[in-house]
Amino acid sequence: MINVPVDKLTELGIEIFTKQGATLERATFLVETLVEANLTGHDSHGVHYYARYSERIREGFLKVDADPVVVKETPGTAYINGNWTFGQITAKKLVEVAVDKAKENMVSAVGAYNCNHIGRIGYYTDWAAKQGIISTFYVNVGHPIVSVHNGLGKTFGTNPYSASVPTSGDTPFLVDYATSVVAAGKLSVAAAKRAKIPKHWTKDQYGRENDDPTVLRQGGWLLPFGMYKGYGLQMVVELLGGVLTSSRIGPSGIEIPPSPNGIFMMAVNPDAFVGLEEFTKNTDTLLEQVKNWPARGGERVMVPGMPEKETKEKRLREGVDVPETTWGEILVLCEELGIDADAMLK
Amino acid sequence: MINVPVDKLTELGIEIFTKQGATLERATFLVETLVEANLTGHDSHGVHYYARYSERIREGFLKVDADPVVVKETPGTAYINGNWTFGQITAKKLVEVAVDKAKENMVSAVGAYNCNHIGRIGYYTDWAAKQGIISTFYVNVGHPIVSVHNGLGKTFGTNPYSASVPTSGDTPFLVDYATSVVAAGKLSVAAAKRAKIPKHWTKDQYGRENDDPTVLRQGGWLLPFGMYKGYGLQMVVELLGGVLTSSRIGPSGIEIPPSPNGIFMMAVNPDAFVGLEEFTKNTDTLLEQVKNWPARGGERVMVPGMPEKETKEKRLREGVDVPETTWGEILVLCEELGIDADAMLK
Repeated sequence: MINVPVDKLTELGIEIFTKQGATLERATFLVETLVEANLTGHDSHGVHYYARYSERIREGFLKVDADPVVVKETPGTAYINGNWTFGQITAKKLVEVAVDKAKENMVSAVGAYNCNHIGRIGYYTDWAAKQGIISTFYVNVGHPIVSVHNGLGKTFGTNPYSASVPTSGDTPFLVDYATSVVAAGKLSVAAAKRAKIPKHWTKDQYGRENDDPTVLRQGGWLLPFGMYKGYGLQMVVELLGGVLTSSRIGPSGIEIPPSPNGIFMMAVNPDAFVGLEEFTKNTDTLLEQVKNWPARGGERVMVPGMPEKETKEKRLREGVDVPETTWGEILVLCEELGIDADAMLK
Repeated sequence: MINVPVDKLTELGIEIFTKQGATLERATFLVETLVEANLTGHDSHGVHYYARYSERIREGFLKVDADPVVVKETPGTAYINGNWTFGQITAKKLVEVAVDKAKENMVSAVGAYNCNHIGRIGYYTDWAAKQGIISTFYVNVGHPIVSVHNGLGKTFGTNPYSASVPTSGDTPFLVDYATSVVAAGKLSVAAAKRAKIPKHWTKDQYGRENDDPTVLRQGGWLLPFGMYKGYGLQMVVELLGGVLTSSRIGPSGIEIPPSPNGIFMMAVNPDAFVGLEEFTKNTDTLLEQVKNWPARGGERVMVPGMPEKETKEKRLREGVDVPETTWGEILVLCEELGIDADAMLK
């Protein structure tokens, strides 16, 4: 692992994407979301995408200067064509429109298609919560690596779900997870350590029990979390994120562009119900109660969003540990783009 | 088990609730939702509530002739005081208002408080889907029997979640489940059969592994489904169904009235996105693909909503099997209310 200070990692990222034609504003936002993923402990959604997105720019799948456009609109809804720019730029527009409309109209629903990978989705629901808006977020990933419950083979993407609500206290509330047992990134981490993985994460290519972290490359697949219940949510995400927005669905059989995302967000203004002040006060109280709930021996009760908050505080102080392979890719990329990484890191 | 034809079970229920002061229209709807729960295989939400609701009427918790009232409204939202009438009557109003607003405004959010138990929530999302509207439904149950992830003791209710979308083909799509590993009713079924239960369903009162189906009565608790991921959804349901609507939350420590429900529904009109026709066509295609997906040996891939559909077709033909204890309670209730059950069953 290479420990890199957060500001250096950010500056390098901005340089990498502006060199490839992104505006400073666009590159700054994109890099902020990627570095934030590392800061909050979601390394699988972090700076290793500097190299991935750069490949997609070179291959023509990612248009650095395209703009997302609203193609259909009502006071409470918007339907956005992402025009294959950075997924993060489309998601930013989507969440801004959804929050504006929820403030005006009390409730909103916004969907987007033609999106590249949008990164860690908790970034967007967390941002909405900080504007006083409750939201739920469904993203279908049109690149299948997860089976259906009882099924053989890859059917859907990791189809993440997120929800966040406003709080005023120290305890955030942020649910943000893949509807597979784990994200694919956790297998890569295990593979790098040559560790075995728990048997309830995956099946091998014949549908047998498996504990090998390289199983996906050998034709195996991830399982949906929580048996048939998590599978139900996995399909809700596919239908709202994918079918409703007309994005590429998992079983389509089409493989390019890689990892298109379909996004669907619903946003609610607490003022239409108990009111923001009352909602936030009672949420704070509930979260404090839960956080201090007695735990089973050796365990700790955490409110969703707390692990991210704690990891972020730690990494802001101590820097982000980047795996050698990722760091190597970033340095190669800098060389190709004529960026003097050594000088920037001084 | 006593096998009772569906029409007889329905007539008896209508007689039971009209005798206690419900209008014919109200009793008919209430009984339809309860019998539908049995028909779809969710016996824990079915006609055994004839006796439970009658107790609550006698105890003054359930007001047969109160009306739910909209107390706050915008074009896309409504906030409803259920005034402690039958939860089903409030939920019916809520879903009708939500669907009307989603048709007009393209998106809606409706919440309700002061609700008694509303029964099987899939009834309402399924109804919305049949009107061409997509919906998600969150119900907090202010009667704690489920722990938080890693926690000791009862914190939240079974907090069900439901989602449904319009389809035109033979395969419905209906997600409807408790956010606990199983509903409490499955423990009662196991207890009646003197069977053991799987160890991942519950903990005993000391937080130890357990396989005894009577564990809840002895101070034990249910676990949230899917580890920390299901726990996240359990809390989303508590915040939207309970805190946002100002309903009684799980850890409040208050025990009467029994089982109050807080309801929150979001509804979306597909016409704001790909359009209803396109959405339904592509959903049908996807569901057919999934239904016919290869399954692991001895298993079958089911689309959420299929088990309910198949059970309903079977029970409409063969009648509903009612446990002796439930049937005995219904007959006692008839006697108390002066209903000649024998004559009605002829």
